[in-house]
Amino acid sequence: MKNELQVAVLMGSESDRETMDVCLQELEKLGVAAELEVHSAHRQPKRTVEYVEGALQRGAKVFIAGAGMAAALPGFVASLTTKPVIGVPLASGLPGGIDALYSIAQMPPGVPVAAVAVGKAGARNAAILAAEILALSDETIAKRLEEMRAEWRRK
Amino acid sequence: MKNELQVAVLMGSESDRETMDVCLQELEKLGVAAELEVHSAHRQPKRTVEYVEGALQRGAKVFIAGAGMAAALPGFVASLTTKPVIGVPLASGLPGGIDALYSIAQMPPGVPVAAVAVGKAGARNAAILAAEILALSDETIAKRLEEMRAEWRRK
Amino acid sequence: MKNELQVAVLMGSESDRETMDVCLQELEKLGVAAELEVHSAHRQPKRTVEYVEGALQRGAKVFIAGAGMAAALPGFVASLTTKPVIGVPLASGLPGGIDALYSIAQMPPGVPVAAVAVGKAGARNAAILAAEILALSDETIAKRLEEMRAEWRRK
Amino acid sequence: MKNELQVAVLMGSESDRETMDVCLQELEKLGVAAELEVHSAHRQPKRTVEYVEGALQRGAKVFIAGAGMAAALPGFVASLTTKPVIGVPLASGLPGGIDALYSIAQMPPGVPVAAVAVGKAGARNAAILAAEILALSDETIAKRLEEMRAEWRRK
Amino acid sequence: MKNELQVAVLMGSESDRETMDVCLQELEKLGVAAELEVHSAHRQPKRTVEYVEGALQRGAKVFIAGAGMAAALPGFVASLTTKPVIGVPLASGLPGGIDALYSIAQMPPGVPVAAVAVGKAGARNAAILAAEILALSDETIAKRLEEMRAEWRRK
Amino acid sequence: MKNELQVAVLMGSESDRETMDVCLQELEKLGVAAELEVHSAHRQPKRTVEYVEGALQRGAKVFIAGAGMAAALPGFVASLTTKPVIGVPLASGLPGGIDALYSIAQMPPGVPVAAVAVGKAGARNAAILAAEILALSDETIAKRLEEMRAEWRRK
Amino acid sequence: MKNELQVAVLMGSESDRETMDVCLQELEKLGVAAELEVHSAHRQPKRTVEYVEGALQRGAKVFIAGAGMAAALPGFVASLTTKPVIGVPLASGLPGGIDALYSIAQMPPGVPVAAVAVGKAGARNAAILAAEILALSDETIAKRLEEMRAEWRRK
Amino acid sequence: MKNELQVAVLMGSESDRETMDVCLQELEKLGVAAELEVHSAHRQPKRTVEYVEGALQRGAKVFIAGAGMAAALPGFVASLTTKPVIGVPLASGLPGGIDALYSIAQMPPGVPVAAVAVGKAGARNAAILAAEILALSDETIAKRLEEMRAEWRRK
Repeated sequence: MKNELQVAVLMGSESDRETMDVCLQELEKLGVAAELEVHSAHRQPKRTVEYVEGALQRGAKVFIAGAGMAAALPGFVASLTTKPVIGVPLASGLPGGIDALYSIAQMPPGVPVAAVAVGKAGARNAAILAAEILALSDETIAKRLEEMRAEWRRK
Repeated sequence: MKNELQVAVLMGSESDRETMDVCLQELEKLGVAAELEVHSAHRQPKRTVEYVEGALQRGAKVFIAGAGMAAALPGFVASLTTKPVIGVPLASGLPGGIDALYSIAQMPPGVPVAAVAVGKAGARNAAILAAEILALSDETIAKRLEEMRAEWRRK
Repeated sequence: MKNELQVAVLMGSESDRETMDVCLQELEKLGVAAELEVHSAHRQPKRTVEYVEGALQRGAKVFIAGAGMAAALPGFVASLTTKPVIGVPLASGLPGGIDALYSIAQMPPGVPVAAVAVGKAGARNAAILAAEILALSDETIAKRLEEMRAEWRRK
Repeated sequence: MKNELQVAVLMGSESDRETMDVCLQELEKLGVAAELEVHSAHRQPKRTVEYVEGALQRGAKVFIAGAGMAAALPGFVASLTTKPVIGVPLASGLPGGIDALYSIAQMPPGVPVAAVAVGKAGARNAAILAAEILALSDETIAKRLEEMRAEWRRK
Repeated sequence: MKNELQVAVLMGSESDRETMDVCLQELEKLGVAAELEVHSAHRQPKRTVEYVEGALQRGAKVFIAGAGMAAALPGFVASLTTKPVIGVPLASGLPGGIDALYSIAQMPPGVPVAAVAVGKAGARNAAILAAEILALSDETIAKRLEEMRAEWRRK
Repeated sequence: MKNELQVAVLMGSESDRETMDVCLQELEKLGVAAELEVHSAHRQPKRTVEYVEGALQRGAKVFIAGAGMAAALPGFVASLTTKPVIGVPLASGLPGGIDALYSIAQMPPGVPVAAVAVGKAGARNAAILAAEILALSDETIAKRLEEMRAEWRRK
Repeated sequence: MKNELQVAVLMGSESDRETMDVCLQELEKLGVAAELEVHSAHRQPKRTVEYVEGALQRGAKVFIAGAGMAAALPGFVASLTTKPVIGVPLASGLPGGIDALYSIAQMPPGVPVAAVAVGKAGARNAAILAAEILALSDETIAKRLEEMRAEWRRK
Repeated sequence: MKNELQVAVLMGSESDRETMDVCLQELEKLGVAAELEVHSAHRQPKRTVEYVEGALQRGAKVFIAGAGMAAALPGFVASLTTKPVIGVPLASGLPGGIDALYSIAQMPPGVPVAAVAVGKAGARNAAILAAEILALSDETIAKRLEEMRAEWRRK
């Protein structure tokens, strides 16, 4: 039965939606129960804390957070849970999102964030990575991932 | 009477002490009541929240936070208060502290952090900037700042 | 009564107006008495000196300077006053305004400039930071800042 | 019973051992069954393929690969399996390991790698991230992670 | 007789075709027998191995591989053959293709790749470099290269 | 007769002396009348203005200014005179002096500074460039420059 | 009488003309006798040598060379003469012309090039810098430069 | 018979010898007839032209040039011959040799240089790449390269 939340996807701003929708769509294609919400670590820290706690209660096993510029959101989520957190750097500040890439990849020792590529490529890979993590204990998702790879081989 | 805290200085790790002591010493030289503590936004977010709230109650008017790598600390403090927050990027990750500089300077619109230079130059300037802010309503500090400038001119 | 100048906003070139207007509008929204003028540290150093001196006489407590490329303007203003100076890096030279960001953030020890993010995000944050500084001794502005934060929380 | 391999840790060169030992030790501290081997994607691709296949048969659920310069190893492992792969950028080429960071983070869409920070901070975080992933279906590891966080809070 | 393949040109994605066509056209202008195919080191490693082996049997003496982002393709080809491999960095990730440039140029000792400029300039130069290599034992190509230089001198 | 000053060399800090002495020595070797002084654009703007005005009266035809970090000194001198100003970026802030290089090279249109390489290579080249400028109307220096080149050819 | 060439302006490619025309027009406005030609250090080294030698015979006192990417042209001209050479980095390769900026600014000790800003700002400043150099022994140009500055002050 | 020169290795400065000796030793290990000389494109362009012409007459089929900073040497050699030229970026200027890497990799269309990694890794790979090129028409070298790869596989 899959009516629980598996992956909670957050983004720092409404303007990140086009990119992070790529993530949500890929999760749906892989059969992962996911949702996407706007949350700001800096503007609404308490609301973000409450959302993360609620998502955990609803069953969230993996968090994905997309953010640009100082991109504190993934690390902020990681400070609130020991579930795996994946960070998607977005290019809303310095060119190419280099500021967000550094902010997300360069987490201090103790609180890891899994950084993926900047922008849509990363948004899609975040979804696949989350699916790979869930697939360790979910055979349906594991099968979907294998099918995706098999399809590439056929092309 | 100056038995209240004026500037609360935080740093992300014990290993930042040598650099951030430059900040504390400059504050003392300028006659500013300050203290320096280690706080991690990622490892101990609740303890940091409590410290900031306590510092505000004890009179803190300006916050200075030194941090390296993803350097979330200054922005985290800024999310908790509308007092001015100064961020000192420290070079504990990428060379020159470029990761911390981007993380601190590139704050998203709404929650400002005042970034200064990387390392000891920035630690010292953070202290002077805090004094300049306090000097707007504190004539003793204003006078000390003027004396410092006058001394430079004499040299 | 608020007929005195509180924040003097300078920009290095007429072409910076669109970005720096964001700063001026945010200041007005926060109830801060501000004005915006074009001044070039390199082309008209004396005129800039005179403007800064005049602004101080008219009550300016905080300076904001937006500049691109070598971006000397914020540091030049900081060399003329012990009032807090906020620098907004603008992207008119190297991509993303990385040249202006380094020029503004990397001030040598002794003469601080508070660097904010590149471009409009920084222009808006410079205004809020200036308001935070003024709010330490101005309850009206302090109240407006609290209202702004409260509004975010409601959203 | 824990006599199966849980995390296979690879590194591109014998000279990476000091850094990657930090990863292995953290895994051991967290009660994760792990091993560390030198494998070169470029010099010995077939031997690496065989190792990955063998590790999968011995139960490996997560792969960690540390590499410097072009840092192809994490992506190469990711091309061979749908298990989660974590990449640790190492600073053996350009200063700060920026070349390895880009090579590992900027994976093309379809084959994700979870990038962590450059060097020892990243090596340690890779171990914790792997433990977080395993903890989704392993209560002993989950408990250890919670204890680690609780210990931080006490400090 | 020139019905054998001389240069096999690979690219990581169909979206690289416009740039890599510049390479193919320059090879044809220089009288080099070449072909261009899409191959992904990460998605279809086995298919790429088979293509490289087939190309070698059909006479390929030089390989050119264009790739963006982590740009593993040129190094992957180089791990499969001792024929010269030329890598063309493409700008599909970070601005200017800086990620691909580092990934291709910073090959570890033992398995060289000849990096050229990012994008179309590099695509064209890869073709000329391949022709220069072939010209060492092919007088027709050597003559064409000399003619190209002579034509420049006349202009 | 050569008892007039030809080249005034400034540096931002006493700690720059070792590098800028390379410049002074090269100027002396080339027979150029030069002097080296510490001047801070930010700490002592008026003293710097007076020095530049005095140097002009004593005959200075070219200015060389070495500075690190925000490196405003060369541009500040250029704002005070229409004589050629050469800027030497020094590595006292970000690694390699990249901050100073950008600050010096990226002067806005209207007030040029001639940037040379970072550090001692640049300090030496600044001297030779100044000599090349003076040599346009000074045959003794022109001859020395030709001799230096002739000596290289003999080696 | 001013029928001699004073400043020879070279550019690496016909596609640089729009930017380098800014340089030529500024030189004309300042009353400097100048000309602009396309020359490639890499494609036509001998033709470039002949042009430089001819320009010297026709009276050229300063050279300006605009180039993108590896941007060898300014350094190549500097290797042929002891007259001052000004290099204008152009953005035809990496974003912002960072490749050209490094190639032009980072000349090895012994053969200086005066680097200015990337693109049109630099093209214009190269002209003013050349005029400043010529003005040391040309009162007409000196007067024009003073007038330009005076005009700025009036604005 | 192998008494002819096969690979001419140049370096821009005596201080590059320790790095470029790695290249020469690797060439010797692979049975390639090579020699290493100091040549400066900027200081001694004519002497460099004569050396390249002489090397071509003595049979040189491939050129390798190591250079730091503006690193014009590889491109200068490439402008003189249609033989393949390999460029080794050296870290004598900006950190990591990033200036030399850009100068060597970003050659304009028409005159290719094969860039390898910065420093000793690149020096060694330049030798192997040169051997791979020669091996296309030299079975002894081809065999040595195959043996080197076979040895890796055994390890």
